[in-house]
Amino acid sequence: MTMTLHALGFEPKQSLSRAETFANSHSFDRPTVVLDLDQVSRNFAALKAGLGDAHIHYAVKANPERAIIERLASLGCHFDAASRGEIELCLSQGARPETISFGNTVKRPSDIAFAWEAGVRVFAADAEEELAKIALHAPGAQVYIRLLVNNSQADWPLSRKFGCDRAGALELLDTAVLMGLKPMGFSFHVGSQTRRADMWDSTLDEIAETWAAAKAEGHELTLLNIGGGFPAFYGEEIEAPEVYARGVIERVRARFGNVDVMAEPGRGMVANAGVIAAEVLLVSRKTADDLHRWVYLDIGKFSGLAETMDEAIRYQFATRRDADPMGPCILAGPSCDSADVLYEKRPVNLPLTLKAGDKIVIRNTGAYTTSYSSVGFNGFPPLDVVVI
Amino acid sequence: MTMTLHALGFEPKQSLSRAETFANSHSFDRPTVVLDLDQVSRNFAALKAGLGDAHIHYAVKANPERAIIERLASLGCHFDAASRGEIELCLSQGARPETISFGNTVKRPSDIAFAWEAGVRVFAADAEEELAKIALHAPGAQVYIRLLVNNSQADWPLSRKFGCDRAGALELLDTAVLMGLKPMGFSFHVGSQTRRADMWDSTLDEIAETWAAAKAEGHELTLLNIGGGFPAFYGEEIEAPEVYARGVIERVRARFGNVDVMAEPGRGMVANAGVIAAEVLLVSRKTADDLHRWVYLDIGKFSGLAETMDEAIRYQFATRRDADPMGPCILAGPSCDSADVLYEKRPVNLPLTLKAGDKIVIRNTGAYTTSYSSVGFNGFPPLDVVVI
Repeated sequence: MTMTLHALGFEPKQSLSRAETFANSHSFDRPTVVLDLDQVSRNFAALKAGLGDAHIHYAVKANPERAIIERLASLGCHFDAASRGEIELCLSQGARPETISFGNTVKRPSDIAFAWEAGVRVFAADAEEELAKIALHAPGAQVYIRLLVNNSQADWPLSRKFGCDRAGALELLDTAVLMGLKPMGFSFHVGSQTRRADMWDSTLDEIAETWAAAKAEGHELTLLNIGGGFPAFYGEEIEAPEVYARGVIERVRARFGNVDVMAEPGRGMVANAGVIAAEVLLVSRKTADDLHRWVYLDIGKFSGLAETMDEAIRYQFATRRDADPMGPCILAGPSCDSADVLYEKRPVNLPLTLKAGDKIVIRNTGAYTTSYSSVGFNGFPPLDVVVI
Repeated sequence: MTMTLHALGFEPKQSLSRAETFANSHSFDRPTVVLDLDQVSRNFAALKAGLGDAHIHYAVKANPERAIIERLASLGCHFDAASRGEIELCLSQGARPETISFGNTVKRPSDIAFAWEAGVRVFAADAEEELAKIALHAPGAQVYIRLLVNNSQADWPLSRKFGCDRAGALELLDTAVLMGLKPMGFSFHVGSQTRRADMWDSTLDEIAETWAAAKAEGHELTLLNIGGGFPAFYGEEIEAPEVYARGVIERVRARFGNVDVMAEPGRGMVANAGVIAAEVLLVSRKTADDLHRWVYLDIGKFSGLAETMDEAIRYQFATRRDADPMGPCILAGPSCDSADVLYEKRPVNLPLTLKAGDKIVIRNTGAYTTSYSSVGFNGFPPLDVVVI
């Protein structure tokens, strides 16, 4: 049976997670993500065991739930913040300011001033205008320069939105010095969902060349921020967190030696700590001879499942009818928006007996769900959260 | 000068709207949409003048701002609601329950029961399972059946998410009768941003055939819900609201005679009543020889501009530097999400002198902005609203 499930792309394990067991045994008035804090603790321990003396900065944007921040702060985790709001959140949950990096390369000037005043010391930049804002509002701050990555092997390679090319980066190191800032090194992002450690090789080679070029120009670099990319299970096999992290750090050490390393896991820290409890609202066929059913859930693209955009992230579903015969479905959300379709190009297999009122659990949804949900599109409230 | 602006795709008008004048003359702590209630009143009057005795049901999802609902209720406008939340909103702002239709074809059973209890009498459906839910929780209710449209000429044709085909619709009329419901007629949606009334012809022909088939089978149909599709100005010429509405209703009367007509304008009622006041956070080039600049705003896909998805809706921008030479830009939002890029395939022309700190106004953003914004992705607060 395990073999069959695995072949269909399901997680080949015998027992349900604590969050899924909780979701199955409780009822909810509206779509709710159940978050298991102990799973977050286990993930942190595994990543720490694998990453050794690298500093782990949890990417708060993945899930800014207060209880998660508090738990991670108590375990000694550091934080990567995207805004003043996230910095305030971390401070309010016990994080010390010197453990918070301001990793957004597009910062509001007043947010920079706030962060500096609060004691945050490390800032990201990828453009001269950003360095000028930092120099003005956080004079003397430490900065790292974000590099564009060309050779990503990720499931979800990033756009060119963040980072600059090699020549630009070397210029920015000089500019930072002229502006009185302290350039510490580089950051990059290997791409979301980089499923195996060996998929980092080409990117690390590319970054190492830029690192060597900067050293050759006389820059004393001490910090390499390897960003995120730590994967979660969405149907395709991934390495276990500790094995993966160890594989990554070995590859980093082989190329960069004994530098300070920062890592920013977000998805890899929280995705498998959450499941969403949702409900089927309608099952229908558009025409009598349609091969696919349409299944409408009470959660959609605008209420927590934004990462289904372009069908990039493929969530795993579980129902009480999964022993029944299965068939392909187009999956859609509850809103009146015709763009609120979750999976259509690659339909999802669900039980042929599925019907309105059935509970459906969406696995590994602890990352990039709650904070993406809209304030009230179509009059639906945002995704609810239960922490266990 | 007007000619040049028009050729570049700008609105060929001499004076700024009241909302834009307000946005230019005030400063805001964060991205803010300025809504002009009097413009909403003028839009309602123009649509009413054009649509004659058709019932106008404002599509609340376009902008659920309380002051807009209150204003429209006071003018005698009816409402199309997508959820219990929207029904409660309309009732709280003075709408009578019999003027509210429950137009979502994917309804939560408890929402149907609530609506029925509150006095809502008209419900949409496109599937047998939905009719069964309505029959159970709103016994004897009036229903209309939503039809799939194949021949849309809209800028943004809808997906196949809503509606059923002709054979299915005729079956559903029979099913509704068997379930004790009152089938009144059909609804359809011509597609978002159908820019000219003559673009409705092919769709209306298609619906009229289904209408005739239902009559031939003995169904007494009395209601045609023509949905939305009423356009807003996003750079391509559109007809004035009254002319457009008259053109549509004449085409409807020519095919369907003296039936009850419902129309559900959303975008056409509120888009031009709002402008967003935003700020440039960063201007940069990724490499020295890049033709395009990257311009980062303090608002993005997750904080109000969700409709830039697939670059479908092309907003118009205005800055104080628009008399300066212009050049192409890739436009992006402020979040750390690499998918938060607004326009890249078709870059936007902006002043070459544009820089961080400049105010930027985004025109015709009164529809589908506030309620789409996320609860706090990346720690940024939702889009703020000022009603004038």
